[in-house]
Order: sequence, then C-alpha cells, then structure tokens
Amino acid sequence: MNKQQLFENIQRKKSFLCVGLDTDIQKIPQHLLSDEDPIFAFNKAIIDATADLCVAYKPNAAFYESIGIKGIAALEKTIAYIRENYPDQFIILDAKRGDIGNTSEMYAQSAFEHLQASAVTVAPYMGEDSVKPFLTYEGKWVIVLALTSNKGSHDFQLMEDVNGERLFEKVLKTTQNWATEDQLMFVVGATQGKMFTDIRKLAPNHFLLVPGVGAQGGSLQDVAEYGMNRTCGLLVNSSRQIIFASKGENFAEAAKAEAWKVQQEMEVLLKEKGLL
Amino acid sequence: MNKQQLFENIQRKKSFLCVGLDTDIQKIPQHLLSDEDPIFAFNKAIIDATADLCVAYKPNAAFYESIGIKGIAALEKTIAYIRENYPDQFIILDAKRGDIGNTSEMYAQSAFEHLQASAVTVAPYMGEDSVKPFLTYEGKWVIVLALTSNKGSHDFQLMEDVNGERLFEKVLKTTQNWATEDQLMFVVGATQGKMFTDIRKLAPNHFLLVPGVGAQGGSLQDVAEYGMNRTCGLLVNSSRQIIFASKGENFAEAAKAEAWKVQQEMEVLLKEKGLL
Repeated sequence: MNKQQLFENIQRKKSFLCVGLDTDIQKIPQHLLSDEDPIFAFNKAIIDATADLCVAYKPNAAFYESIGIKGIAALEKTIAYIRENYPDQFIILDAKRGDIGNTSEMYAQSAFEHLQASAVTVAPYMGEDSVKPFLTYEGKWVIVLALTSNKGSHDFQLMEDVNGERLFEKVLKTTQNWATEDQLMFVVGATQGKMFTDIRKLAPNHFLLVPGVGAQGGSLQDVAEYGMNRTCGLLVNSSRQIIFASKGENFAEAAKAEAWKVQQEMEVLLKEKGLL
Repeated sequence: MNKQQLFENIQRKKSFLCVGLDTDIQKIPQHLLSDEDPIFAFNKAIIDATADLCVAYKPNAAFYESIGIKGIAALEKTIAYIRENYPDQFIILDAKRGDIGNTSEMYAQSAFEHLQASAVTVAPYMGEDSVKPFLTYEGKWVIVLALTSNKGSHDFQLMEDVNGERLFEKVLKTTQNWATEDQLMFVVGATQGKMFTDIRKLAPNHFLLVPGVGAQGGSLQDVAEYGMNRTCGLLVNSSRQIIFASKGENFAEAAKAEAWKVQQEMEVLLKEKGLL
C-alpha cells in the first residue's frame, strides 16, 4: 500500500483510526478462555466488529511474545485473518525493533515475509544500518519512533544540541534521507499536543502513527488541529479503550460502539479540514 | 546471579567470553537440516562444545523470530537446555526491546518468566518507564544500549548537548539512577576502541557487554586495555566467528577451537590485569 492508497482508504471509511491489538490474556472475557485459541478468538471478534470503522490494525508484539509459542501462533493467525478477510487494512506490527544490519534483516524477514505485516515500528537509536534493512521491501513501511507518548520520552528525546535541535528532530530529519514518504512514517504520541506543530515543520507530508489517545490521555482534537495535513497524515491508535470496552459476552459490540464513537469524531475532523 | 558471582565465574573459567547464538538456518551445516529441530540441534552441539570456555550465551532473538513458531520453540529449548545442563552460564536474550510501561512489562515477562533468560538487552530511546519494568525481577539484569558497534552508532549516539555531553553519555548517567550495578550493564561495541576510556569515566564499575570482536573487526586487546576494571567488567561477545567456524560435520569442534583461542587470549589479559 502506498501513501495515496492509504489516504483513499481514510476517505472511503471516513476514519483514520488504527485499532491496537494489545491482547492481554489476563484481560479478555472469561468465557473465551475455554476456546482452543482464546487470543485469536478475541482478536477475530474484535476485528469483525470494527473493520468497517478503522483503516489499520496494530498488533503489539510484546503481548503475544509474553506467552510464547501459543502467542506467536495467535499473532500469525490474526494477521493472516486480516489479510484474507479485510485486504484493505494496513497492518502494523508494533515491535520497536532495531539492531545491527544483519540482525535487522532478520527482524524485517520476520515482520514482512513471515508475518506479512504492512509496516513495523523501529527504534532509531542504532542509526542508519539498523533501519535500512526494513526499507528494502517494496510496498512495506517503516515507522520510526520520533516523539513517543510516555513520560520517559522526556529523558532522551528532548535532548538539545548546540543549535537547539532536539534528538527527535534529528531523527525526523536524518531518517528522511533514507526513505521516501511512501515507506516511512513516524511515531508521535498524542500526549505531545502542540509539539505536533514542530513535527509538521520537519515532516509536513509524512504519515504519523499517533498512540496515546484514550487510556494514555491524549486529545484527538489537538492531534487533528496541529497534526493533520492534506492527505490526513495521521493514523490515530486506540488500544485498551476499544478492545477492553467490556469484559462481558458483549465485548465485541462494546468495542464496535467505542470504535464508532471515535470514527464519528474523526469524520467531523476530516470534514472540517475539507478532506471529505 | 549478581556481579560478584559473575566475576567468580570469570575467574574460575579464566574467560569473559560470551558466545552469541545468532543461529541462521541458512548457515548451519547441511547435514543438520534433516534433524527434527535443526536449530536446537546446532545450538546444543555448539553449547556442549564451548561451555567450558565461556561464561555466557547470547541468543539473538531476531534469528529465531525470523522463522516463526519453529524458531521460538528452538529458542525456548535452547535456553532450557543451558539452564538445566550449565546452570552457571549467564544467558542474555539479545532482543533490544523497549516500549511504554505496560508493554515493556510484557517483554520482561517474555524474557524472564517465559524464557528464563538472565538478562535482556534494552534500547533506551523511550526513557525511564520503558526500562524500569525489566528491573523489577530480582537477580535479573538489564543491558542498556549505550555506544553500539555498528556504523549507524554515529548517527544519534554521538549527538552533543550544549555542555558537550553526548547522548550515549547521558544514557550511561541517567540509567544509573534507575538501577544498581547488580542489575544493569551497558552495550559498548568493541569497534569503539579508545571510547572505552570515556565510558569508564561514567561507569567505572559496571559490566559492559561488548559485541563487535571478530566479524565486525573490534580488537580484544583494545577492549581489555581501555575497558577492563577490578571485577573484569567485560563480557566480550563473539557470534559468527565461533559458531560458523566450519560448515562441515566438524562444526562443533571448529567452534570449540575458535572459542579456545579467544579464551586463551582472555586468560593472558586477565593475568596481565592481576585478576587471576
């Protein structure tokens, strides 16, 4: 999928919602635990309930890895299920990978060849040769951490050099030398509010993956006001608020209702920006 | 295992070698491919051949993930095999993880509860709350990327603030506020030579995990000269040079011979420093 196709999906769905599949076995409804593969059963129900309302899914690798082989199997089945049934969905493997070249090659193989994700999140600390192996796959995307949504983002990402350039700005500038706008996005936390203005100075046209709306406290209005561009340029993620909206047997309908609320808000914001 | 116990193992084995299990299915000897689990068969033979000569093993998560469930199964079996047969070995899961708190918790669960590693490598970009969940496990270690061995280490890690403090130095200083010397190490690439002097100014007593000797071109002599401290303070990793020393049926003996050469060199260096 390229940038234009992603934008067309956003216009068609009137949504730039990404549903985060942070599927925690401790938090899924009790009645699913008797299923052969409770995690996949949960994901499948959530996906079927929300696919009309979002343009992307973001399985969070950590939650699947934490239970070993069964978790990995559920992750594989989840991505394959989306691919087969909702081929217009953009699938982000949220894995925050990054290592020396020969190792990043293996991570890229895992994300793009084995799991068939559309994109993978990558940590920039190790620099160019840790990111480039992910960029050799045509039609696949790398989403580089720039300014994250958590408190710890202040520890290193805001470090300033002698010219007042901050680390996240250096990441935004430097990585653009390695990739086109059709293969590179940035993670910018919704909790960063007006910092989106600074981000857009350096990356006016790129898509941004925006976590932190909902459970982490970020505001969708602020994100749209300061971050939206002519092709929307935003994938706003919501995980817990949607997928764990209810712990009862109605969990999928409750997730749909939450996703619908967000989609309705997004439709208004897209219209206000003249993008629909 | 605490720092003192690790040092005692180093003295007893006369070695500070860590063998990197970057087990690439494309590179293991042909005759193993008919085995039910070729990767585990390879690792088992390498471990049995080298366990007397090293104090640590470092499976590289990427190589196992790249082939999916079978790879994860081989990784689980490999760590369990070391735990059972060589309980004095320090087991580093090289995974370069790091995410917001609730997600790092899951990665920590995967590394320490599920896989039973002794330590995990962590990328510092996301700051305190991305690292701390790994520090809640008693007797377990976090190994934070400071100055890595690859070319891309120059892209961001050497960024200087107004006081001339570089990013990797800020990482060395800041992370020490979060953890004791018995649970925190740093990754410093062997290719960084005299930079070890700068590292030791900020982390005189910590253990350093040092990749980059061998295939990546770093010098063991330089590392020991500039990096060794009173409790050795070094785990020097070698992966490809040892485990892929031969592609023939004699691969395990060839690995043993390579590991022996490194151990012999290490014994001399430890004696020169008065640590044996």
